[in-house]
Amino acid sequence: MTAARRGRGRPSRAEAMEGPGARERILEAARAEFAERGYDKTSVRGIAKAAGVDPALVHHYFGTKDEVFAAAVELSFEPALIIPAILGESPEGVGDRLARYFLSVWENPVTRAPLLAIIRSALTHEAAAKVLRGFVLRRLLQRVADDLDVPDPELRAELAASHMIGIAILRYVVQVEPLASARTEDIVALVAPTLQRYLTED
Amino acid sequence: MTAARRGRGRPSRAEAMEGPGARERILEAARAEFAERGYDKTSVRGIAKAAGVDPALVHHYFGTKDEVFAAAVELSFEPALIIPAILGESPEGVGDRLARYFLSVWENPVTRAPLLAIIRSALTHEAAAKVLRGFVLRRLLQRVADDLDVPDPELRAELAASHMIGIAILRYVVQVEPLASARTEDIVALVAPTLQRYLTED
Repeated sequence: MTAARRGRGRPSRAEAMEGPGARERILEAARAEFAERGYDKTSVRGIAKAAGVDPALVHHYFGTKDEVFAAAVELSFEPALIIPAILGESPEGVGDRLARYFLSVWENPVTRAPLLAIIRSALTHEAAAKVLRGFVLRRLLQRVADDLDVPDPELRAELAASHMIGIAILRYVVQVEPLASARTEDIVALVAPTLQRYLTED
Repeated sequence: MTAARRGRGRPSRAEAMEGPGARERILEAARAEFAERGYDKTSVRGIAKAAGVDPALVHHYFGTKDEVFAAAVELSFEPALIIPAILGESPEGVGDRLARYFLSVWENPVTRAPLLAIIRSALTHEAAAKVLRGFVLRRLLQRVADDLDVPDPELRAELAASHMIGIAILRYVVQVEPLASARTEDIVALVAPTLQRYLTED
């Protein structure tokens, strides 16, 4: 959808005025605004202000607030698009690689903040949940499931995802001890066999 | 804390006027208000109105909004207090019993709504997260961990909890398919061995 919008017709006057980096600036501003303020309190006007552009340009590139949110989700989940590659490598050790990769993304504050914002928004706003559902379902989990050689691959991919999301919530949001302070290695050692079983064993 | 408040001194004039069922009415109203409006939009005044009592009586029994929330969390988690008993029965089949019990609580809309409200509130408000953390840590997971005969029992109890919370979020909140429509039996069959391993095996 964003590609279609970007490609339509000749550049508008506003677009020509803002220069070629404007789309990326808007997207980064959107991600930061959604991360900081949450879905509810973020507005197209606020995103435009943070990006230093006219609100009309945000609408021009992305459409509605929901569509800007969808684009920000895709940007934030880019690291997750590596996951099919992780799975595709070889069935052996896939649980270990996946647990390790997942925790590395969450341990990094730069990638953690937007993911947290998305989870928070999806839990409190149906519009945000719909975006996450569509994206997670269409783009990520389906690709993971396509690579699996087990019965019910989609269900198993979602159970693996549910475990990782639950760990992220208890460790990084609710911060329950000892999980919040546990060493990454100790978590990987316990969780890897679970993911391995969901993704590779009958 | 609530017990201490309840027990202090002789009944106030307001308390005497409202009758002996007032405390329970307030607590049920608080649970409903937090479930419906979320932590942010719930007020002591609103709870008092829903319970048909004076706001001063809410303060008298529970103290601050945070303390009312803590009492509502305890009430909502009452079903969870059965879990140590489930674990204590016998190590064999504990994963199956736990997965089954957990899903039955979430399948029931009456018990699901307040749990959802708590998770949502904890994800968006540090005050609510603190209550959940304190409660989950002090009352529930510690009791579970005390019954486990494995290394790192607290961490394992939390990993089991994280998986169930993640399933609840993807199945009942984000509603990702096929997990959202999967039969309880199919989920139990896949998840029970995971819980079994966390809670009983080295």
